[in-house]
Amino acid sequence: MERYDLLIKKALLPNGKVKDIAVKSGRFVKIGSDIEAEAGYVINASGKIALPSFANMHTHVPMSLLRGIGADLPLMDWLQKVIWPLEGEFVSPEFVKAGTELGLLEMIKSGTTLFMDMYFYEEEVGKVAKEAGIRAGLGFGILDFPTKVAKTPEEYLKRAREFAESFKGEELVFPVICPHAPYTCSPQTLKKAKELADELGLYLHIHVAETKDEVERIREEYGNTPIRYLSSIDFLSDRVLCAHMVWLDEEEMEIVKERDVKVAHCPESNLKLASGIAPVPEYIRKGIHVCLGTDGSASNDNLDMLEELSTMAKLHKGVSLDAKAIDAVTALKVATQNGFSAVGIRAGRIEEGYEADMILIDPENPHLQPLYDPVAQVVYSAQSSDIDTVICRGKVLMEKRELKTLDEERILYEAKIWGEKIRNFLDRYKG
Amino acid sequence: MERYDLLIKKALLPNGKVKDIAVKSGRFVKIGSDIEAEAGYVINASGKIALPSFANMHTHVPMSLLRGIGADLPLMDWLQKVIWPLEGEFVSPEFVKAGTELGLLEMIKSGTTLFMDMYFYEEEVGKVAKEAGIRAGLGFGILDFPTKVAKTPEEYLKRAREFAESFKGEELVFPVICPHAPYTCSPQTLKKAKELADELGLYLHIHVAETKDEVERIREEYGNTPIRYLSSIDFLSDRVLCAHMVWLDEEEMEIVKERDVKVAHCPESNLKLASGIAPVPEYIRKGIHVCLGTDGSASNDNLDMLEELSTMAKLHKGVSLDAKAIDAVTALKVATQNGFSAVGIRAGRIEEGYEADMILIDPENPHLQPLYDPVAQVVYSAQSSDIDTVICRGKVLMEKRELKTLDEERILYEAKIWGEKIRNFLDRYKG
Ligand SMILES: [Zn+2]
Ligand SMILES: [Zn+2]
Repeated sequence: MERYDLLIKKALLPNGKVKDIAVKSGRFVKIGSDIEAEAGYVINASGKIALPSFANMHTHVPMSLLRGIGADLPLMDWLQKVIWPLEGEFVSPEFVKAGTELGLLEMIKSGTTLFMDMYFYEEEVGKVAKEAGIRAGLGFGILDFPTKVAKTPEEYLKRAREFAESFKGEELVFPVICPHAPYTCSPQTLKKAKELADELGLYLHIHVAETKDEVERIREEYGNTPIRYLSSIDFLSDRVLCAHMVWLDEEEMEIVKERDVKVAHCPESNLKLASGIAPVPEYIRKGIHVCLGTDGSASNDNLDMLEELSTMAKLHKGVSLDAKAIDAVTALKVATQNGFSAVGIRAGRIEEGYEADMILIDPENPHLQPLYDPVAQVVYSAQSSDIDTVICRGKVLMEKRELKTLDEERILYEAKIWGEKIRNFLDRYKG
Repeated sequence: MERYDLLIKKALLPNGKVKDIAVKSGRFVKIGSDIEAEAGYVINASGKIALPSFANMHTHVPMSLLRGIGADLPLMDWLQKVIWPLEGEFVSPEFVKAGTELGLLEMIKSGTTLFMDMYFYEEEVGKVAKEAGIRAGLGFGILDFPTKVAKTPEEYLKRAREFAESFKGEELVFPVICPHAPYTCSPQTLKKAKELADELGLYLHIHVAETKDEVERIREEYGNTPIRYLSSIDFLSDRVLCAHMVWLDEEEMEIVKERDVKVAHCPESNLKLASGIAPVPEYIRKGIHVCLGTDGSASNDNLDMLEELSTMAKLHKGVSLDAKAIDAVTALKVATQNGFSAVGIRAGRIEEGYEADMILIDPENPHLQPLYDPVAQVVYSAQSSDIDTVICRGKVLMEKRELKTLDEERILYEAKIWGEKIRNFLDRYKG
C-alpha cells in the first residue's frame, strides 16, 4: 500500500467536488475519491473548504510592532513625521525578531504560506520564518540616505550581499535584493542592486509608482515617469517584483507587460495612505502578471490576505463600474497562484504536482451559510478567523486554529512589552 | 447601595480610559472608576475594548438565504435574471423566518443592535427580532408591479398599513414605510406611501440614486434626476432614510442637506454590484446626516458592519486621495451614533443617559497587538470574530461569543435545508 506523509480526507475543493488529498515530500501527489493508504498524519476535512494558501507579495513584517501608528496620515507625512523617527529609535535585531514573530503568528492564522519582505536585520526575519515553517523571500532594504543600520549606499549594498549569501540554499527562505524605491535610491544604487541580483541569481523587490507625488519627483529629477526611467537604466525584467504600481500610463503598462515585470498590488495600503487605486483590471486584461500584498501593518493595519483579496475584488468593480472587472475566481488566483509563480514556486493550486500549500476553511458559521459557491463565498464573505488549518509544503502549521510551530502566548506577551516601550516614546515625542 | 441591572467592570473606552459602566432600565446611568454596587448581572471586561454597537441602516435580512447568489453580476442583471425569479419561487413566511433567524445570528455575532429592513412578510422579521432582543425598523416593501405577495400598488399599500398597525407600540421593533425605489414606484404610489407614513407618524425608507442607469431612467420618465424629482413631489423630509445615494450632483446634495434627509451609505454593495462610490466625504463636509448599511447578503455577501465600516474608512481616502477624508473616529460615528439618531434613538455613545447598546472587543489576538489607539485599531484591523459581547438596551445578547437569545445550531441546520432546496432550483433553472 502506498504511504503518504499527509492525507486530507473529504475536503470540498474550489470546483465544488469532495475529494481526498494525498501529500508526499511537500507536494500534492494524488487527489481522488476515497484514497485508502497509510499516512504519517491524517486530517479529517469533512465539511471544510480546501483552497490554496495565500502569497503575501509585499510586506514589512517587523513593522507589526508599529501597527496602526499614524492612522489617517498621507504616505509622506506618515513616513517622515511618524514612522522614520520611530524606526530610528527602535529598529534593532530584537525589535525585528519580536515584530516578525507577531507578524508570522498573524500571517499563519490568516492563511499565508509565502511572504515577500523588505526591511532591516532580515536575518532575524529569516530565522523566525524557518522556525515557523513558512516560505519567505527576504531582502535587506537598500537606501541612499544614512540610517542607524548603514550610512552609504555601498554599505547598504554590502549588508544586502552578506544577508543574501548567508541565506542561500535554504529550503523555505530565499534571499531577494531590495532597493527601496526609485525616489530613495540613485540610478547608480539601482544599477548596482540589479548587478548584485544578477550575479547571485536573485529576484529584485522594489516600491514603484506608489503616489502621484513620487511620479512628479521622478519626472523632475530624471525627466521621466518611474517605469520609463527604470526601463531606461535597464532595471526591469521578469525577475523584478514592483510593489504598488498605482500610477502608470498606457505606455508604461506596455513596458511592464513586455518585460514581464511582476506587480504586487496592495489595495488596502494604497487606500489607507490615500495613494490611489491601481488600474488592476486593465493590468489583468493586458496580461500583466499581478499578485497581491498587504504592505506592512503600520499602513494596513493588518497582514490579512483574505481581507485584502475581498477588498480587491469589490473595489475594482465599483471603481470601473463593471461587475465583472475582477471575478471571485480571478481574485483568488491573484492572491495565491500568481504570487507563488512570480517567484518561481509551483504552488497556489490544489492539483497533483503542485507544492502542498493550502488552507481549510470552516463554513459552519452564519456568515458562510447557505454555501452555494465555495470560492465566491470565501472571497466575498469569509474572514480569516474562519481558517481552520494551514499547510505549507506539506507541513501543518495550524490545525483547528492551534498553531503548531509558534508559541502564541509568549509572542503576544513580548509584543505587548514592545508596545509599552513604543507608547512611552510616542507620548514623549508628541509632548 | 445603588442597585443596577448590569455592571460592566474595567472596560477600555474609546477615549483610552478604563472605566466601569452601570446600566439601569436599558440606559447607561453611570460611568466611573471602581463603581461599587449591587447588580443583576456583572461582566468582567478587563482587557476588552468597549465600543457602541452598530446600526445597520439598510438591509434585507431574509435574503441571507440567498447569500452570494449571482456573484459578479451588475445590479439590473442580478435582480432580473437571478434574484427576482428565485424570490418568485421561494419567498414565503417560512422563508422569511428562516432567513431572518440566520441574518440575526450573523448580525448579533458581528455587533449590530439596530437594523432597518425592507422586504416581504416583515411580521415574521418582527417576531424573530423580538425574540432575539434586537432593535429593528421594519417595512413591507411597496412596489408598482405584481409579485406573489401583492398585485396592485393599493394592495401593497394595504399590506404595508396592516403590518405597520400590527407592530406599533413595541419596545424594540418599530414599523417603517418602505416604497422600494423611484424606478419601481409611480409618483402616485410614492405620494400615498408618504401620506401613510405621515398619518401613522412613521419614517420612510427607500432606495435612491443607486446606479447611473437609475438616474437616466428617472430623468427620461420624469424629466429630472432622482432627488430633484422626489423633492418636486414633496417626498423628502428629515424622516426619510435614503439608501445608497451614489449619484447626486451638487444641487441635489444641497436639497438633501436642507431637508435633513438621512443617507444610508452601503459601500460594499455599491462596489460589488458595480453601482459606484457615493461621495460620502463631501456629504459629511456639507453636514449631511450619513449612516451606514450592509444591504442584503445576496449583494454584499454578509451583514458585517465592522467590515463595512473598515471598507468605508479606507475606500474614501483612496478615492479622494485624502488620508483625512474619513478618519477612524468619524467612521465609527457614522456606523453607530449616526444610525441610531437617524431614527430618533439616543444610542451610539457610551455615555451617561444614552441607551445601553454596546459591544466588547477582545484584543488578545495577533492582528490587534500592540494596541496603541483602540478606535483606529478596531476600524482598520479588527474582524467581527473579535467581538466578544453584545448588549442591546441593557440586555446581553452575546457573551464570550455565545448567543443568549438565539439557538445557533438549530438555525444553521434549517438554513442548510433551505440552501439545499434553493440549490436544486438553481440547478434546474440554469439547466
Ligand atoms: Zn511597502
Ligand atoms: Zn437594498
